[in-house]
Amino acid sequence: MTGRFISLEGGEGVGKSTQLLALQAALAEGGIDCLTTREPGGSAGAEAIRTLLLDGDEGRWSIQSEALLFAAARADHVEKTIRPALTQGRWVLSDRFLDSSLAYQGGAGGLGLETVRTLHELGSQGFLPDRTLVLVLGGGNERARARDSAGSDRIGGRSADYHRQVDEAFRLIAQQEPERVRLVDASGTPAEVTQRLLDAIADLLP
Amino acid sequence: MTGRFISLEGGEGVGKSTQLLALQAALAEGGIDCLTTREPGGSAGAEAIRTLLLDGDEGRWSIQSEALLFAAARADHVEKTIRPALTQGRWVLSDRFLDSSLAYQGGAGGLGLETVRTLHELGSQGFLPDRTLVLVLGGGNERARARDSAGSDRIGGRSADYHRQVDEAFRLIAQQEPERVRLVDASGTPAEVTQRLLDAIADLLP
Repeated sequence: MTGRFISLEGGEGVGKSTQLLALQAALAEGGIDCLTTREPGGSAGAEAIRTLLLDGDEGRWSIQSEALLFAAARADHVEKTIRPALTQGRWVLSDRFLDSSLAYQGGAGGLGLETVRTLHELGSQGFLPDRTLVLVLGGGNERARARDSAGSDRIGGRSADYHRQVDEAFRLIAQQEPERVRLVDASGTPAEVTQRLLDAIADLLP
Repeated sequence: MTGRFISLEGGEGVGKSTQLLALQAALAEGGIDCLTTREPGGSAGAEAIRTLLLDGDEGRWSIQSEALLFAAARADHVEKTIRPALTQGRWVLSDRFLDSSLAYQGGAGGLGLETVRTLHELGSQGFLPDRTLVLVLGGGNERARARDSAGSDRIGGRSADYHRQVDEAFRLIAQQEPERVRLVDASGTPAEVTQRLLDAIADLLP
């Protein structure tokens, strides 16, 4: 039996990391052993690339170099961490994966979704999650609160307009790949959000 | 007036670095101001990627990750170092450029020349040298001496069979792009080799 690969996505400050742990705990209660991991990073080589990507000035990398570095890190993450775990029958939950590159570099960064997909094909043979869960918030105050709690690394610190384009790209990807990619309402209590995530992967549970 | 971009290529231990400086000196005598640079590296970001590429175990990176990292470094090198120098009217001499990725990852590494060209198109808009000079040695003892003096980093330390495939790939590229890429005999005295390099760029001199 092979494991399932689930990625959790969303803009800055939407509660992704908290929900990753809550989802892992809920699956563990159901007897499912999950490896949690993250991008950029998740393997020794990819964590070294993560440092290059998130440290330094905003102008440190062009959007092209940034996308190539993400694709290199992802190829390492897939090869060294994700595939071996799945082969052992474990589930894998990743805090971000390909769709972050599609939304951030491809959409908001202007590189185009097809270019990012080409890089993923070359780097990772187009390897995709069994399900991608995108946490989304409505407009207005909720979003403002989320942004206030966002990190301030090279990418998290970009403009509100950039992050609005990231959200739009996530919604577009969900339209393009409705079977794999599901939008999940991130409003309400943490427990309510976790239940929505579980509902969105119910068909994958044994 | 814009400068010219010349790359110097060849397998391990063929005298590339020595000839780069000799060529720079010869051009300076003719009144041509040359920036010398190298790959992987040549800009702050690309030098950081160089460390990732050349340090560590042979199995640190898959050939896919390696090619993506080279493309990311090259994009940075072109944007931050090469293009600005050319715009200022300077000549640029680079110790290795795209053709090393074509020969090492594309040819010997089995990734294919077209995949490496696609990465270069995505990363650096397909930016090419005005002339690429490939230093080549014949077979037998000469090659053995060259290999004995080769470095032993992650890539230089690969098998003799790998390096033979690198040489074959360089010869194939020279056949495919005869106007840009010239094979230059690396045998004889250093001064003789430098003169051959000058002859191979004579049509580009002012």
